[in-house]
Amino acid sequence: MAANNFLFDTRDVKFVLKEWLDLDKLLGCDAYRDYYSKDDVDTFVDLVYKICRDQVGPANEDCDKIGAQYVDGRVTLPESVKAAYHTICDAGFGPQKGDREVEGHMPLLLSGAFDEMFSAASAGVTTLWNATAGAIGVIQEFAGEKYKALFIPKMYTGEWAGTMNLTEPAAGSDVGNVSAKAFPTDQPGIYKVKGTKIFITSADNDIVENFIHLVLARIEGAREGTGGLSLFMVPKRWVNDDGSLGDVNDVYTLGIEHKMGLKGSATCTMSYGENDACYGILLGDPPGEDGKGKGMAQMFKMMNEERLVTGMMAQGISAEAYYNSLAYARERVQGTKSTDPKGPRVRIVDHEDVRRMLMRQKSCVEAMRAMIYKTYYYLDLSHDSPDPQERAFADGRFQLSNPLCKAYISDMLWVLVGEAIQVYGGYGYIEEYPCAQLARDGKILAIWEGTNYIQSQDLVGRKFTMAKGQVIASLLKDINDFIADHKNTAGFEKEFAMLASVMADYQEILGLLNNYLQQGQNTMAPLYSTRILHATAMMYCAILIMDQALLATRKLAEAGEDHFDASFYKGKIASARFYVMNELPAIFSIRQIFAAGDTTALDVPEEALG
Amino acid sequence: MAANNFLFDTRDVKFVLKEWLDLDKLLGCDAYRDYYSKDDVDTFVDLVYKICRDQVGPANEDCDKIGAQYVDGRVTLPESVKAAYHTICDAGFGPQKGDREVEGHMPLLLSGAFDEMFSAASAGVTTLWNATAGAIGVIQEFAGEKYKALFIPKMYTGEWAGTMNLTEPAAGSDVGNVSAKAFPTDQPGIYKVKGTKIFITSADNDIVENFIHLVLARIEGAREGTGGLSLFMVPKRWVNDDGSLGDVNDVYTLGIEHKMGLKGSATCTMSYGENDACYGILLGDPPGEDGKGKGMAQMFKMMNEERLVTGMMAQGISAEAYYNSLAYARERVQGTKSTDPKGPRVRIVDHEDVRRMLMRQKSCVEAMRAMIYKTYYYLDLSHDSPDPQERAFADGRFQLSNPLCKAYISDMLWVLVGEAIQVYGGYGYIEEYPCAQLARDGKILAIWEGTNYIQSQDLVGRKFTMAKGQVIASLLKDINDFIADHKNTAGFEKEFAMLASVMADYQEILGLLNNYLQQGQNTMAPLYSTRILHATAMMYCAILIMDQALLATRKLAEAGEDHFDASFYKGKIASARFYVMNELPAIFSIRQIFAAGDTTALDVPEEALG
Repeated sequence: MAANNFLFDTRDVKFVLKEWLDLDKLLGCDAYRDYYSKDDVDTFVDLVYKICRDQVGPANEDCDKIGAQYVDGRVTLPESVKAAYHTICDAGFGPQKGDREVEGHMPLLLSGAFDEMFSAASAGVTTLWNATAGAIGVIQEFAGEKYKALFIPKMYTGEWAGTMNLTEPAAGSDVGNVSAKAFPTDQPGIYKVKGTKIFITSADNDIVENFIHLVLARIEGAREGTGGLSLFMVPKRWVNDDGSLGDVNDVYTLGIEHKMGLKGSATCTMSYGENDACYGILLGDPPGEDGKGKGMAQMFKMMNEERLVTGMMAQGISAEAYYNSLAYARERVQGTKSTDPKGPRVRIVDHEDVRRMLMRQKSCVEAMRAMIYKTYYYLDLSHDSPDPQERAFADGRFQLSNPLCKAYISDMLWVLVGEAIQVYGGYGYIEEYPCAQLARDGKILAIWEGTNYIQSQDLVGRKFTMAKGQVIASLLKDINDFIADHKNTAGFEKEFAMLASVMADYQEILGLLNNYLQQGQNTMAPLYSTRILHATAMMYCAILIMDQALLATRKLAEAGEDHFDASFYKGKIASARFYVMNELPAIFSIRQIFAAGDTTALDVPEEALG
Repeated sequence: MAANNFLFDTRDVKFVLKEWLDLDKLLGCDAYRDYYSKDDVDTFVDLVYKICRDQVGPANEDCDKIGAQYVDGRVTLPESVKAAYHTICDAGFGPQKGDREVEGHMPLLLSGAFDEMFSAASAGVTTLWNATAGAIGVIQEFAGEKYKALFIPKMYTGEWAGTMNLTEPAAGSDVGNVSAKAFPTDQPGIYKVKGTKIFITSADNDIVENFIHLVLARIEGAREGTGGLSLFMVPKRWVNDDGSLGDVNDVYTLGIEHKMGLKGSATCTMSYGENDACYGILLGDPPGEDGKGKGMAQMFKMMNEERLVTGMMAQGISAEAYYNSLAYARERVQGTKSTDPKGPRVRIVDHEDVRRMLMRQKSCVEAMRAMIYKTYYYLDLSHDSPDPQERAFADGRFQLSNPLCKAYISDMLWVLVGEAIQVYGGYGYIEEYPCAQLARDGKILAIWEGTNYIQSQDLVGRKFTMAKGQVIASLLKDINDFIADHKNTAGFEKEFAMLASVMADYQEILGLLNNYLQQGQNTMAPLYSTRILHATAMMYCAILIMDQALLATRKLAEAGEDHFDASFYKGKIASARFYVMNELPAIFSIRQIFAAGDTTALDVPEEALG
């Protein structure tokens, strides 16, 4: 039996879902009313916790130590990974979430919460169904009824998997440079596909019976760049009209990458049409006379939600590192208290800097969780609210927050897991303890689904200007109102003074950005966009966790000191205080740096870089 | 032949050694005058570069992929690692540096510079001689003539190795809890040693003939805590009076750790005296009636310089990540310029955020290099200057800067190599490219030789108060004088204004620290010491790299635009500007945070942590 490092405290997840977010409102929407109630949350969360503890956690070491193996043209996965996958799919927590049309589907907020726990238990295992869920969404929206009926039910159950094929050796972030080609055949809608794709996540394994690969390619004669791309469903095995599996398509796995981590997920190099016999089904219409394909828009449909899943995976890994380093700090005895050097030896949780590192992790994990769960909430409302105005509002908040969740959380992962390793001291560097693998598994999340730089450009270039700036303006108003409404709250005067002070600086950052752009200094946006994204995420996180602290204060007063939840609420209040007073002020420096507006990085001649 | 990712630009090393530091003064000291001149620097640096390129770089992949192996009670290393080790030792760049008594020994500044390059080529290989060098220093100072003559010459050449044995399962940072014991024998100075040590770096391998283990243990009857410890030389094989190898001592390697990285260096669990037959030679006198041993003071002698070596290893790894990510960014074509979206596809070095990440790495690598080379320079002067006042001054600067070099550089390594991975995009996550291994290899440097928390406590608790605060006061005066002297330098007005503004905040941080301590808030020091250490290091680094930029400006004016060095000097000026305008301002936030003085991390009840 492999080691099981899974440790997760579900209390904050339940707080966010049941006490903080307006779950009744969401579950009151038509899609959910007859199927879910707030009372189900504990049942579901506890069930997922048990699956993680009993099945997914133990598979995680095999993910790393055995990993996906490429043998004779096929990818194999460890038995424990297969078992975990089937358990999750059978229990209804797998790719099902991608099917928004089926009766009784679950809100993404809930499946998102479960993905946090699954990622905490094993990010490698978690990759196995998330691309499938995304592919279901694309097929549902863009495929004809025939293929929807043929493909989705088998993908829904996890018997088949879906993948997303954009990247080629010369087309990474630069998707428009895709060189994969597609050629019409005699059959309408069926094309011959030809090309090589790399870095395709979980595109081969011995768990599922069939793969529906979504492949981005250029139909002969279409225009160059992203505008000319189309999207194809390329089954690994062709599917007969009666649903049975037919001929093998000309699709081959050429190899898998040797990666820093996430070794339970095969990162495949895929060959399509090497023998000129790979057939794919076009999604939507072929390019018209203007040569424009619909592939990118269709793919973005998938990527938009996959970005949020990436943020949630980073959330789960960061949380797992915290829970483990906390448990270690509570057991490990080392040294005496700084205030009592001749006193008894103490556990390291009593050392000031260890406390700092633990509170940093705790406060960031909870602040990020507040932001990403809120974003999932808005994503659901943007689909399910009966009120069109509310749908539009929720969509705006989702769109704005999506790059924040993806980039801030995955950037912070590297920092926070680094702190967790540091709490362990030398043991943090040993692979029998969990944090080394968590750092290795997590680093890719800052890169895939659009690098964090691309997220920051999306934020600054598209999201800030969305709806003529109304979306960000409305968020700023909410933040200012929140501070104005609560600034005199007894016991939180210092925190609200800090929030107000930092918010002034944050708004100055946005003002500076406008000024630079108005003066034609257009490169100031991409040069500072990463820092602006971090500042925006921190400001938003701080407000959300302060809102949680105010709720926790009320709950604590109601429950009383002796209530079993008193410690949780005190911890929540501590998280908010720590985040606002220790993390958020980083914005002061960002404002000063942006105001000074140094452009050395662009001015320096390239040959002077070394 | 293994892949060789070694890439290193020696130009800045030569600039620091030959143009910036006053090397003539150091080489004018008695110890060096007859042996070295500034003209030798290029020869040495180029020779080490070639060894790195041809021997050490190629061994680094074997370090990671094959690694140290534990088979039947012995540790074996890959053949390429053995070859690299012997080449380095034979060329005179190995443990020789530990011998300060031999005629013609090299200044540590030079061997430190070579260690930067060796660490860049392979941190794993570099561990193989550094503990030996440290052990030579201890033996030289504390052993009797007989053992000095028996041990040092063989260690000097690298035929034998030395190790440092402090850590036990229950005694990591808490060294005083060591439970290893020593018992007198009939022979004066010879003791029976008994105990188990863990995390012992390079304590076994099949490269060297013999090991001289320095083992910290408590002589029967000595007092508890660090004060009661003594230090023993425990040869793996006993050495006869004629220098030949004698009986095997009762010393066994019980196993090696499975680590995140640095796999070319065996991290051993060592057993001493399992069969009650392990003999060691006491260094210095046994505890007197007060029960006090001399072991900790002797061990600190070694650790003090090993800390600086750790900083240098972190320096080399950070530099290597920069040079590699720069080379990649110069080749990799992806997307168009943000200012010319319909223009030609460009190399990613032309993208703003990639430039930011590259300049961040370059400026930090050079600023850190300025600090650590300057610290090595002071370390040499503290031994070799003919002027006792200058020796004392240099020793103060070395003592003060030592924790800055160890902790700031190893903390920044994690951040900077993270940025390097990000520059590579998906390829950064693939182990065939160098940066994943660099991150994995480097993380331990923030932990060993005293965790970075211990470094920060050393800075704030000991170094700030050293000589009644005169050492830090003198550094502050130098910084203020430097700013005052140069604030009107044409072309650097913005940078000096920023330096002055940040320096005011930095001094306020020190003032706040004094205030808190005077008010009896003693826990504010350890709670904020990590942030204070980072602020101190950044302030010092900024001044040093600005000093380099002023020199580079003069050199550029002398050399002219067409000189082959013009690009280097422009790059140096850019590094200083970027560091001062983009990194240094982080101190603004630290000041605000420290002024607010949040103590939530200590106030929170432990049970509220989760």
